[in-house]
Amino acid sequence: MQPVIILVRPQMGENIGMVARAMLNCGLTELRLVAPRDGWPSESAMATSSGATEVIENAKLYNTLDGAIADCRYVLATGSFDRDMVKDVLSPEAAIDVIQKEAGPCAIVFGPERSGMDNEDVVRCDAYITIPLNPDYPSLNLAQAVLLVAYQWWRRVSVENNLPVAGGERLDAQCIVPATKEQLSGLFDHMTEALDQSGFFPTEQQRPVMLRNLRNTFHRLRLSAQEVNTFRGALKSLFKERI
Amino acid sequence: MQPVIILVRPQMGENIGMVARAMLNCGLTELRLVAPRDGWPSESAMATSSGATEVIENAKLYNTLDGAIADCRYVLATGSFDRDMVKDVLSPEAAIDVIQKEAGPCAIVFGPERSGMDNEDVVRCDAYITIPLNPDYPSLNLAQAVLLVAYQWWRRVSVENNLPVAGGERLDAQCIVPATKEQLSGLFDHMTEALDQSGFFPTEQQRPVMLRNLRNTFHRLRLSAQEVNTFRGALKSLFKERI
Repeated sequence: MQPVIILVRPQMGENIGMVARAMLNCGLTELRLVAPRDGWPSESAMATSSGATEVIENAKLYNTLDGAIADCRYVLATGSFDRDMVKDVLSPEAAIDVIQKEAGPCAIVFGPERSGMDNEDVVRCDAYITIPLNPDYPSLNLAQAVLLVAYQWWRRVSVENNLPVAGGERLDAQCIVPATKEQLSGLFDHMTEALDQSGFFPTEQQRPVMLRNLRNTFHRLRLSAQEVNTFRGALKSLFKERI
Repeated sequence: MQPVIILVRPQMGENIGMVARAMLNCGLTELRLVAPRDGWPSESAMATSSGATEVIENAKLYNTLDGAIADCRYVLATGSFDRDMVKDVLSPEAAIDVIQKEAGPCAIVFGPERSGMDNEDVVRCDAYITIPLNPDYPSLNLAQAVLLVAYQWWRRVSVENNLPVAGGERLDAQCIVPATKEQLSGLFDHMTEALDQSGFFPTEQQRPVMLRNLRNTFHRLRLSAQEVNTFRGALKSLFKERI
């Protein structure tokens, strides 16, 4: 069961639209709004939600946070966590763990853009989510905070769709010093010149695609700086013989 | 060593500013720009980068992607991955694994807002990053794509700063049916009325803070629906005796 996203007193309709997009990116569709400053429905929210209008159109409106969380079994506050109240503080990842174990509806609450959640709202929640960021620059805009939390949920529930992790198949970075891109481009330019002069390309039309494929192969090889030097020496030698 | 973020032909200065913010949120400071459409420096980038101006001011400008990646040992493309070229495809998490193992500078390249990276740019990279999102609505704006990738990096390198994962300490959701917030609020209203009438609050001034603390305690208890009923019965009984 997907968590509900609740925005308490959001200020800008534009931000509500951006939140809708971030939610739908991560498969979340249930948005609840508590007393949005500029009223509801909002044209600016519709405008910025491009493609995620279903989330905006189905958003539910409440006067109070109590109303918005009435049917919820577990509610998470977001924001900074250096407050007086004793609450569990969870990273987004840990919060998703809890939500996934929960039997009933869960909600994640985000406060107004400028001030964040106030104490009277936080006290109604079971725990905090804090997004661990650069302590010297932790401020996120509303849609980005929603995105980071929603993405954790999406990653967790879409395990079956995960991409293959190909990182383990490459050469061990400890053993070779990979060539820089400049060294690779040098080799490639050298080879192109040699191939051009030796009449390698059947037609001028085929040349760009053949070159692109060749370049792609070279970039896939993960050549070391040493190997690039060897290749260039070989090329020089072969090219000399041809002329 | 932190990865470099490269934007190829970014269109809107506003987006460059938002990228700078997302980078600094995650401790990344090295931004490179390849031929930004509206020139450089950009007033609109400065305006939207509020607080992350150091990233904008230190951004380096290049005419070509080749120039921007010349000193890099490992370069990752971003975007969709259903292309002709044979490349490793990594999730952001797997990409960060590779970057962390790499000895020299690494870069992550993002294409123009509207079209994404073109093939001539992708071919210069070692592998793709694809951000796994809702297949029915996968489009992210530029700053959000940068944020999701940068956040994976930040989470990995800031393990020592991690928040305690408190999720395991709570009651097992299998064993109890937690009360809804409505049930909890009902109990709390009942108790407030009883305390008011029994003269529990020393002064009117202290009442709001004492009530808030009491409410916080109740929300921390993770009471079951059954326990709420028991509490209300006890309250009714105690209150009756007092009158």
